[in-house]
Amino acid sequence: MSKKITIAIDAMGGENAPKKNIEGLDIFLKKNKHKDDFSIHLFGDKTILSQLMSELKINDKRIKIIHTDSVISDKETPLTAIKNSKNTSMWNSIKSQIDGETNISLSAGNTGVLLVISRMILKTMNEVSKPALAGLWPSKKNMSVVLDLGANIECDEKNLVDFSEMGAALYKSIFPEIKPCVSLLNIGSEEIKGTETLKKAHSELKNMNSNNFSFSGYIEGNEIMNGDTNVIVTDGFTGNVALKTAEGTAKFITDSLKKSLKENLFSKISIIFSYFSLKKFKSKLDPRKYNGAILLGLNGPVVKSHGGTDAVGFYYSIDLCYKIIKGNLMDQIKTNLSHLDVKN
Amino acid sequence: MSKKITIAIDAMGGENAPKKNIEGLDIFLKKNKHKDDFSIHLFGDKTILSQLMSELKINDKRIKIIHTDSVISDKETPLTAIKNSKNTSMWNSIKSQIDGETNISLSAGNTGVLLVISRMILKTMNEVSKPALAGLWPSKKNMSVVLDLGANIECDEKNLVDFSEMGAALYKSIFPEIKPCVSLLNIGSEEIKGTETLKKAHSELKNMNSNNFSFSGYIEGNEIMNGDTNVIVTDGFTGNVALKTAEGTAKFITDSLKKSLKENLFSKISIIFSYFSLKKFKSKLDPRKYNGAILLGLNGPVVKSHGGTDAVGFYYSIDLCYKIIKGNLMDQIKTNLSHLDVKN
Repeated sequence: MSKKITIAIDAMGGENAPKKNIEGLDIFLKKNKHKDDFSIHLFGDKTILSQLMSELKINDKRIKIIHTDSVISDKETPLTAIKNSKNTSMWNSIKSQIDGETNISLSAGNTGVLLVISRMILKTMNEVSKPALAGLWPSKKNMSVVLDLGANIECDEKNLVDFSEMGAALYKSIFPEIKPCVSLLNIGSEEIKGTETLKKAHSELKNMNSNNFSFSGYIEGNEIMNGDTNVIVTDGFTGNVALKTAEGTAKFITDSLKKSLKENLFSKISIIFSYFSLKKFKSKLDPRKYNGAILLGLNGPVVKSHGGTDAVGFYYSIDLCYKIIKGNLMDQIKTNLSHLDVKN
Repeated sequence: MSKKITIAIDAMGGENAPKKNIEGLDIFLKKNKHKDDFSIHLFGDKTILSQLMSELKINDKRIKIIHTDSVISDKETPLTAIKNSKNTSMWNSIKSQIDGETNISLSAGNTGVLLVISRMILKTMNEVSKPALAGLWPSKKNMSVVLDLGANIECDEKNLVDFSEMGAALYKSIFPEIKPCVSLLNIGSEEIKGTETLKKAHSELKNMNSNNFSFSGYIEGNEIMNGDTNVIVTDGFTGNVALKTAEGTAKFITDSLKKSLKENLFSKISIIFSYFSLKKFKSKLDPRKYNGAILLGLNGPVVKSHGGTDAVGFYYSIDLCYKIIKGNLMDQIKTNLSHLDVKN
């Protein structure tokens, strides 16, 4: 199959944009030197982008720059941004999907605005009740998908079942060789535990017997990183708290470790001996590798890169876009949802 | 003040009970050799306990053994346990508070049963809508109190305000020299973020202007361990997921670190040089130091030790009981709630 993948990049969004965006793109191009199955549409100020690309000696036929006049700032609220966003890099990078020019959109810009205008432009899929924000989470066995990470603060059982099906599709598109295993995040593993919403979603997923993913019931917060299940489903409030608590815990521990290892001469010497091992340890936990939250459930996928990430982090989110489309995310979602009656 | 503190210990609850319970008690007695402001009531099989104590050469006037015939197993559900629990070590250790013999109860036994029979025997305080389970959480500046950790899966604003007042009282009883600072766990720090319940609790706490604690608004999951606020309030579902996610993340990171440091000769040598620093690092994060969840809002405090902890962990939970009563927890709670009209 020689399907062409076209990625729309908001080149102006995020801290240090467009520099880090173009540097990240440069890494992606170098790592995929010989591939001809993709092209990149860059949305932003043509003069600035051309200048940056010539500085980095990027002269690549796979890239097209689409000029846009303005940028949505981080301070703007969805309400004010929508009014004046038609000429922005973010708006146009999303709109290009509707126009049939691109397959996926990537932005490191204002999250609130991105979620709102993505829904406005791409619209929610007929089969889906609510879109969800999914993220990659490191685990003992590679990585897992966790959703919803904050798109919906309150969810019903239909939402949780939709999230399960979309999350399984996302996992399958990234890791085509593995059959996804879905679980619901709860405060106990027994079937009687949890809210009424969780119990109903549990029973629905159990009875579904999908060919496309297995369902392993409930897991607790301490099992997210075990890797026994690889799609973990929860409402956006709980998912957001869990994600941020994990981030905070990881930072607390690595900061404490750094402090301990620098406190005396012996421990400083130890760093020399453990240099490569510690580097490997650090690399495994490097949050840039997991950069990119995926908005699922619209008529086209949108990836949100962390605003504060650097060029390497932005590279990983471009790579994620490539993998998702290569793995036929949208078809996978439609297949997983095909048992539902299409609304309207 | 020479107030006598009497701690009721369920000596038979938890893994490796009663051995670890008595060994933990032994540590506590040795660390508090010269204090005469406490006594310990041990509930359990008199023959077994006496035997264990003589093996450990514990001969201490501050200890009294109260014989009980049976033990609540970990497999029992609250429903079955209640029927036949009257002669158990757990039931009697809690009941001793009602009889005026003890000030606080400690158990490492079956959590579900402990929560149910504590409520049955001690009853919820008139001023309180629902009891909550509070835990100690390490932070950059010593430790914080987080509640609810799972006693209530759904909470309204009244519950969250009660939890704030009880959590502040608990913190004050453990750290009398610090004015507690309360915050609500949310998915953003702006006042407009979050569920309706959170918004109402936020407005109520803000208007309260309590003399006994300050209120700093919302915090996100990644700020729990910053130490900027020291009482973090949430519903039992979110609190339980956050706690377990933090535990899982900590385990994942320390396991990865251990693996990295053992993978080659150089990194193994590094362990020798960093031995004391790593030991200090490990000690700071030692979960045994934070062992003990406190059930607040009943007419008497109940502390739940982790069932799987060892003698050192059990020692820390005895020490916690001592501190809480020394710090006048129940009076602190009543003071914080005194602005409310007493129901009934």
